[in-house]
Amino acid sequence: MIIMNNRLKKLHKWMLEKNIDSTIISSTENVFYLTGFHCNPHERLLALIVYKNADPIIIVPKMEEKSVISTGWSYDIIAYDDTENPWDKVKNRFHSINCIGIEKTSLNVSKYEEIQRISKSDTFINVEEILNELRLIKDSEEISIMRDAAHLADIGVEIGISAITKGKSELQIISIIESELKLRGVQKMSFDTMVLAGPNSAEPHGVPSLNKICDGDLVLFDLGVIHKGYCSDISRTVAFKSISEKQREIYDTVLQAQLKAIEISNPGTLIKDVDLAARDHIKSFGLGEYFTHRVGHGLGILIHEYPSMHSLNEGVLKEGMVFTIEPGIYIPDVGGVRIEDDIVITPTGNEVLTKFTKELLIIK
Amino acid sequence: MIIMNNRLKKLHKWMLEKNIDSTIISSTENVFYLTGFHCNPHERLLALIVYKNADPIIIVPKMEEKSVISTGWSYDIIAYDDTENPWDKVKNRFHSINCIGIEKTSLNVSKYEEIQRISKSDTFINVEEILNELRLIKDSEEISIMRDAAHLADIGVEIGISAITKGKSELQIISIIESELKLRGVQKMSFDTMVLAGPNSAEPHGVPSLNKICDGDLVLFDLGVIHKGYCSDISRTVAFKSISEKQREIYDTVLQAQLKAIEISNPGTLIKDVDLAARDHIKSFGLGEYFTHRVGHGLGILIHEYPSMHSLNEGVLKEGMVFTIEPGIYIPDVGGVRIEDDIVITPTGNEVLTKFTKELLIIK
Repeated sequence: MIIMNNRLKKLHKWMLEKNIDSTIISSTENVFYLTGFHCNPHERLLALIVYKNADPIIIVPKMEEKSVISTGWSYDIIAYDDTENPWDKVKNRFHSINCIGIEKTSLNVSKYEEIQRISKSDTFINVEEILNELRLIKDSEEISIMRDAAHLADIGVEIGISAITKGKSELQIISIIESELKLRGVQKMSFDTMVLAGPNSAEPHGVPSLNKICDGDLVLFDLGVIHKGYCSDISRTVAFKSISEKQREIYDTVLQAQLKAIEISNPGTLIKDVDLAARDHIKSFGLGEYFTHRVGHGLGILIHEYPSMHSLNEGVLKEGMVFTIEPGIYIPDVGGVRIEDDIVITPTGNEVLTKFTKELLIIK
Repeated sequence: MIIMNNRLKKLHKWMLEKNIDSTIISSTENVFYLTGFHCNPHERLLALIVYKNADPIIIVPKMEEKSVISTGWSYDIIAYDDTENPWDKVKNRFHSINCIGIEKTSLNVSKYEEIQRISKSDTFINVEEILNELRLIKDSEEISIMRDAAHLADIGVEIGISAITKGKSELQIISIIESELKLRGVQKMSFDTMVLAGPNSAEPHGVPSLNKICDGDLVLFDLGVIHKGYCSDISRTVAFKSISEKQREIYDTVLQAQLKAIEISNPGTLIKDVDLAARDHIKSFGLGEYFTHRVGHGLGILIHEYPSMHSLNEGVLKEGMVFTIEPGIYIPDVGGVRIEDDIVITPTGNEVLTKFTKELLIIK
């Protein structure tokens, strides 16, 4: 609770600096980050309103009121039912509010127009600037949670690899992974679990199917869990029964590329250099055209956060940043290999949170 | 100009009537509805642009280009990589575009500002009006898919109820349901499966846990699948080992309320009357305060669509509308009961798509 208060305090301080009268936060993730209250209201409105000169308030659907209270929220709660316009219930709190902070990439135009209607304001500042900056650097409590989330991802991969047998389908293996993780208390995966075998592994956006795993297939796993509100994300690739020379070459190339990118991920490293460390290695084997995506992405409350680990990002790695490093090579008729870990930048280097082996496994 | 399908033609006709020069569709669901191309681009841009006086185009991340082609899209595709601003790639197509159609509840402010930047337009019309109207009435192909989706939901409930045994937890039963459905080819549930037992069943937004099911618990199931892009949604409640008199009373009350609401769901019925049919019945037993939500919601590509089945909706039911009817009573220390079916309005009445029994089951 003291941590939550600190986050709101930092936002409030930024508002003072920017002379923002009121900030309206309506994304599930930022309300959670700032208050500890997690709620996906679907098409209904959830909003945390922070004022320069007054106490914050939360607007929630009536059925969520108790949940807000149970998180320890000690300020006003505006609860509304499906027949009410929640904006009208806070209209009187927008007198002499001129400059408003909003989340430009999550606020929709319809809510934006409602805010314009009740406030008469025409000055809107994107508060994602400060919220992304705050969320970019994880504190020790967040890192500890993400370490546990990564451990559960390791377990997921281990379960999946152990479950591979002749005749099993991609979807069957996914169901085993997810059901075993549920028994360990995992309530939600951080995205749709991917198990892609054979030709499907060469599709960066392949869809798992009832197709059975065959001898000589590469089997690509990509999965993660949500643990106490934070995501993990791991990829491993194994061979089934046998491996061709070409498949072994792409495995080794991806692994070396990934290790090089991890090795240079230290405080002060340019983010683009992390991407390029992996990309240049893959290019040096003439396989650059098959590495079709950025080397990784930031990780936290959302599965895709800042920093974006691409080759044009001039930003610098700092202590507390958490991100994935996941180079891949996808060659039609040969298969795909991706190896992905979650990394946190430490004062002196980095810690790899996901620990499942990256040795080439040939499942017999 | 030949526009490729009836749905795009209807949108184009509406644009002519409203004198809209260009419509920008960026929601996954409406792009899917209009083109058959399903893509969740996360933070990246996906957009279908329909012009009054030119062929439509699709903007997609480069890695999705092949998928668009594979759906049979025969117009221009603008593919971009992570280092490009996709809006700049279509800027030259926005000369002399004055009035622009957008999706106000799904377009975010950031994209809205990009559209304003490249177009210089200041007239924006909400095209959700027509898209919701089109999607509100399902055609025979959509209904056929939704019938199959509902059948898979029936199977899910059957699996879940068969899996209840002493000592099993809510999460264990969910894992059995989801893994069995995966083996039947279900790739995605339409929302997080709910199995809520005992006190948890009385929480409308309860979270499944590792708590074990106990004698005398009500066990509430709420689940659905996505099948060929369309959602199903079913709720059933059973008792474990025994049932108290009060629990039986709320079960019977919910069931009768649900049957009354279904009975009057015919072409021409006011939507509010469907809600009130259930609500008045529950109120007549003095339990109105425990029925804390609307009676149902529209169903289709999204789990929550129009029509919203609440007590103030003056709209009228029409052939082809698909929605849920799901009254519930939730009493702390007694438990919760919800019974939910998916309904389609037919020329002469309705068809209940979910068919799992609603008789009170006491699982021994």
